[in-house]
Amino acid sequence: MNQMTTIDELEVGYDIPAKPGMREEEIQTPCLILDLDALERNIRKMGEYARAHGMRHRAHGKMHKSVDVLKLQMELGGAIGVCCQKVSEAEVFARAGIKDILVSNQVRDPAKIDRLARMPKYGCRTIVCVDDVTNVPELSEAARRHGTTIECFVEIDCGAGRCGVTTTEAVVEIAKAIDAAPGLKFTGLQAYQGAMQHIESFEERKAKLDAAIAQVKDAIAGLKQAGLEPEIVSGGGTGSYYFESGSGVYNELQCGSYAFMDADYGRIRDKDGRRIDENEWENSLFILTSVMSHAKPDKAVCDAGLKAQSVDSGLPFIFGRDDVEYIKCSDEHGVIADPKGVLKINEKLKLVPGHCDPTCNVHDWYVGVRNGVVETVWPVSARGKAY
Amino acid sequence: MNQMTTIDELEVGYDIPAKPGMREEEIQTPCLILDLDALERNIRKMGEYARAHGMRHRAHGKMHKSVDVLKLQMELGGAIGVCCQKVSEAEVFARAGIKDILVSNQVRDPAKIDRLARMPKYGCRTIVCVDDVTNVPELSEAARRHGTTIECFVEIDCGAGRCGVTTTEAVVEIAKAIDAAPGLKFTGLQAYQGAMQHIESFEERKAKLDAAIAQVKDAIAGLKQAGLEPEIVSGGGTGSYYFESGSGVYNELQCGSYAFMDADYGRIRDKDGRRIDENEWENSLFILTSVMSHAKPDKAVCDAGLKAQSVDSGLPFIFGRDDVEYIKCSDEHGVIADPKGVLKINEKLKLVPGHCDPTCNVHDWYVGVRNGVVETVWPVSARGKAY
Repeated sequence: MNQMTTIDELEVGYDIPAKPGMREEEIQTPCLILDLDALERNIRKMGEYARAHGMRHRAHGKMHKSVDVLKLQMELGGAIGVCCQKVSEAEVFARAGIKDILVSNQVRDPAKIDRLARMPKYGCRTIVCVDDVTNVPELSEAARRHGTTIECFVEIDCGAGRCGVTTTEAVVEIAKAIDAAPGLKFTGLQAYQGAMQHIESFEERKAKLDAAIAQVKDAIAGLKQAGLEPEIVSGGGTGSYYFESGSGVYNELQCGSYAFMDADYGRIRDKDGRRIDENEWENSLFILTSVMSHAKPDKAVCDAGLKAQSVDSGLPFIFGRDDVEYIKCSDEHGVIADPKGVLKINEKLKLVPGHCDPTCNVHDWYVGVRNGVVETVWPVSARGKAY
Repeated sequence: MNQMTTIDELEVGYDIPAKPGMREEEIQTPCLILDLDALERNIRKMGEYARAHGMRHRAHGKMHKSVDVLKLQMELGGAIGVCCQKVSEAEVFARAGIKDILVSNQVRDPAKIDRLARMPKYGCRTIVCVDDVTNVPELSEAARRHGTTIECFVEIDCGAGRCGVTTTEAVVEIAKAIDAAPGLKFTGLQAYQGAMQHIESFEERKAKLDAAIAQVKDAIAGLKQAGLEPEIVSGGGTGSYYFESGSGVYNELQCGSYAFMDADYGRIRDKDGRRIDENEWENSLFILTSVMSHAKPDKAVCDAGLKAQSVDSGLPFIFGRDDVEYIKCSDEHGVIADPKGVLKINEKLKLVPGHCDPTCNVHDWYVGVRNGVVETVWPVSARGKAY
């Protein structure tokens, strides 16, 4: 959406799925809808948790890519700012006035580094992750060129097997280089264990986090020896934040999915063996879909397929229904088993997506609903900002 | 993109991955790039095939969602128009001046039916699929309200198990109802066997199509008996078009993926057992990605994850390389096995996506490249048009 365009100028059914004031039944499908009551409850709950445990909460903006959802996380949940994964995504939040932004990822391309170094000019604290000492002079040179300061987290790979260094020696080496580099500031550690978040068993997740925490403790000890105590130690997701909070070493959480939830996170268990979408976080995000063919008595076809969601973490489930089941996803269609033939043409269903992050990224709008009425329509502000 | 915005006003690295005239190395990743030479060869080849076999080729616009690619298919490949899956998508092509448009899907929502009935006012032939006799009065009423004609294909489910009727009796019943309905015209049959397109074995695909062709022949015989000979019998995809062309009953093809190709289609075999991406169609679509972390000696991390592609049909492969392999995809990262440690930071790789259609749908732009230079940047015109 061009920044000069307003929602009033957009056409429902072509540009946008709904406008404020419409009844839920009139929303054009498929689209993302948010149960605003559930969303607000999730956001307040995480805010209270973070406050009670003395943790900063930096909301993960890569999940929702929405300035509006982030502002709600800051207003209702006390989030201190945002983390996100790409420079272009960070710029969306910076241009919207967010003052504390972490790019929780490496930035290596010269053009992207240049953009990153200009970000503080929007008035925001700008933090980036580093896992390679050769990145330090690249960042330093850009910051000096623009007369800005880029703060740096050294990224520890504490089990996810992606970016990040694995030894305290490497952490200290990079932190020292950052500390010595003009235009840069060594601020802390990025230690997000992404690979454990979706493990179903609480005990298995805990074991992975125990190992991560031990690794982070060792790194902090090494940094202290070098006179480089980190100000911020950041990590934690929806499947682990209680472990980081109780660790005594982390002081910042990066939870994102708790706000919306999805089918894959929903399946994981809390310490009492209960699904977390039944006891911890509510589903507030749904793909609203309509039945558009029922030519076979026991199968319905709905209008939400691969263009309306990502199925990397499994198929969606149909919220609040156990009589029908989403069983197959193709480009434009979802096949729904309807053994008793109960579904009617144009009947609307709410799908809980398998994985919220890449599902949000295919949509342009969130339709916020309360009491059956569209209350707000928010752009997926950073959709497609992958650079 | 707002229709008043021009490419000149867009910012490389924020709004858009590249501008014409840039060198390939300067393109901001991740993004979609098109090898224009390969694309044009594919398009000419399909055009020659269709001409030689007396078939109309209605290019499937749901694959690329691009007015510019469609226009190339019409200019260089003689395509007669477009088919697509959603009304909002069809409207993009109608507003761009395309004169023959098939919505190869059912339209049931009243607001969508109303939009469909207005489409002929753009000056285009408008065709839709019907698989339920109760849809006929809905379409008829809308066409009469707008003083337009909606042409209708009866959709046969010839094996895909989604929309469509399965008996000749049902085909004839719906065709008769269409023929009798003011504002509607019975034009033909939609008989696309979507479930067989990706079966690797040529012989197995042929067996599925033989069954489909028999079903279509029976339906045509039934229609002739009722005095309703179809003008158009439409179907056929990249994995089957030679079967429909030789059937004596189909006269229109709907191939789409042949133009770009993807990893999943590439694996299927021609009648001589050869991969079709080695002998029949060239890969012209790639996700351009950059290496952005290499903290472990045998693993690199690139910047194209789930936000840059759909992995529903498997992971991408790295084009032209057998020394490195894309082995894992998370939200923002691809993990690349690099056993010999040959990859360098910022090195660019071309990924062939697992499945082109939903991959194109997460991107806003195609960067057209020829001889290492960006020649054109095309919007993914109907991206997000899912309604």
